[in-house]
Amino acid sequence: MTRYKLTLEYDGGGFVGWQKQDNGPSVQAALEAAIEKFCGETVRVTGAGRTDAGVHALGQVAHVDLAKSWPARTVMNALNAHLRPLPIAVLAAAVADGNFNARLSARSREYLYRIVIRAAPLAIERGRAWHVTHALDETAMHEAAQILVGRHDFTSFRAALCQAKSPVKTLDALDVTRAGDELRIRARARSFLHHQVRNMVGTLKLVGEGKWTAADIAKAIAARDRAAGGPTAPPEGLYLVAVGY
Amino acid sequence: MTRYKLTLEYDGGGFVGWQKQDNGPSVQAALEAAIEKFCGETVRVTGAGRTDAGVHALGQVAHVDLAKSWPARTVMNALNAHLRPLPIAVLAAAVADGNFNARLSARSREYLYRIVIRAAPLAIERGRAWHVTHALDETAMHEAAQILVGRHDFTSFRAALCQAKSPVKTLDALDVTRAGDELRIRARARSFLHHQVRNMVGTLKLVGEGKWTAADIAKAIAARDRAAGGPTAPPEGLYLVAVGY
Repeated sequence: MTRYKLTLEYDGGGFVGWQKQDNGPSVQAALEAAIEKFCGETVRVTGAGRTDAGVHALGQVAHVDLAKSWPARTVMNALNAHLRPLPIAVLAAAVADGNFNARLSARSREYLYRIVIRAAPLAIERGRAWHVTHALDETAMHEAAQILVGRHDFTSFRAALCQAKSPVKTLDALDVTRAGDELRIRARARSFLHHQVRNMVGTLKLVGEGKWTAADIAKAIAARDRAAGGPTAPPEGLYLVAVGY
Repeated sequence: MTRYKLTLEYDGGGFVGWQKQDNGPSVQAALEAAIEKFCGETVRVTGAGRTDAGVHALGQVAHVDLAKSWPARTVMNALNAHLRPLPIAVLAAAVADGNFNARLSARSREYLYRIVIRAAPLAIERGRAWHVTHALDETAMHEAAQILVGRHDFTSFRAALCQAKSPVKTLDALDVTRAGDELRIRARARSFLHHQVRNMVGTLKLVGEGKWTAADIAKAIAARDRAAGGPTAPPEGLYLVAVGY
């Protein structure tokens, strides 16, 4: 048996998310179907991040065990051929140690959240960014974001459905930068709670609008109550950029 | 009667091109339909560049005359509302002088052609760039491109269907740069022949592959024969970026 590490890019727009579900097409199920078409093996693929419906990936990582051994390049090319025409691409495949686990071995996860600020609807970037029609103060957002960095109980930014044992996480970085009419929010941590990035982004947007101050962010964390956090930003702006091991 | 100048962004993937045709949806027809829904007027919209099927625009410019006068902002918002859910956005609308003609008054047109070089298929950028799986020498491409800059008879880079009176055009700039795994080719001229940018890009790719030299480009121009030019690059990598007046 050989374990393979796969690095994946996908447009999450047409999927119910990474994880296999009964209510529609998932990235995981698409990969498992492609593997079965390629080599006839019915396997389970494990992903580093369970991205939600509509969330994209530039560098999701997954692992899978195959009974028969193939050159990694063959696996990559065959899966890409069988994934066609779905918007999922295997960027890299490598033979991995049997102890490697895409989810459990991950030491860092990096997400990017894109907000495009302009009056007109998005045509080219539709479904690839959060469209906001009014100005946001990115300097205030970045400053307020620094309050969230560090080890905290993130209950106020955690989805009700979150299955993590503990709401305590260490957020390593949360940076807000502007490039033209686009705000880019980069978040890095060993792991995140369900909806944590989108809930942080939705809350920082309140700061960008002048409705919340940095002090309100501090109060929200201290409350340890989801009702004290801001709204959830929509999925289409979120990208799983990279997973570190 | 009031003339309006419209600046447009669109994803050309689902259209037969800018120009109204019998064989499918066009950007022009979509705009004319949106205008009729907005104010009841049946009008003709004139665009600066007749982009082909699959070609995108970041800054196409068009003009239209309306019998009733509206604030430009009202026109922009109403058209955006009526264009939904098509991937066409009116980025700006302004009242223009009656002498302004989006096509005839244009003094410069700028196009961008994107090539993404990587083994894996494109997922996020599918339909938005030309996917090439082997290395291209962008320095050689840029150097060869300079031979095309200037006033030339571009017959060798002109589509058979081109309706321009003369094949002589002045190409003001043709730059090839790299950003990560992406090559960006920027072309600027007062006007272009039909397929000229795509034919120049397809030819420069031969240089990037080492199949052609800069001298071959010079020979191709001198031949004044479409058969002497390289192949036509696919439409999905091409963007009409801006039109200058």
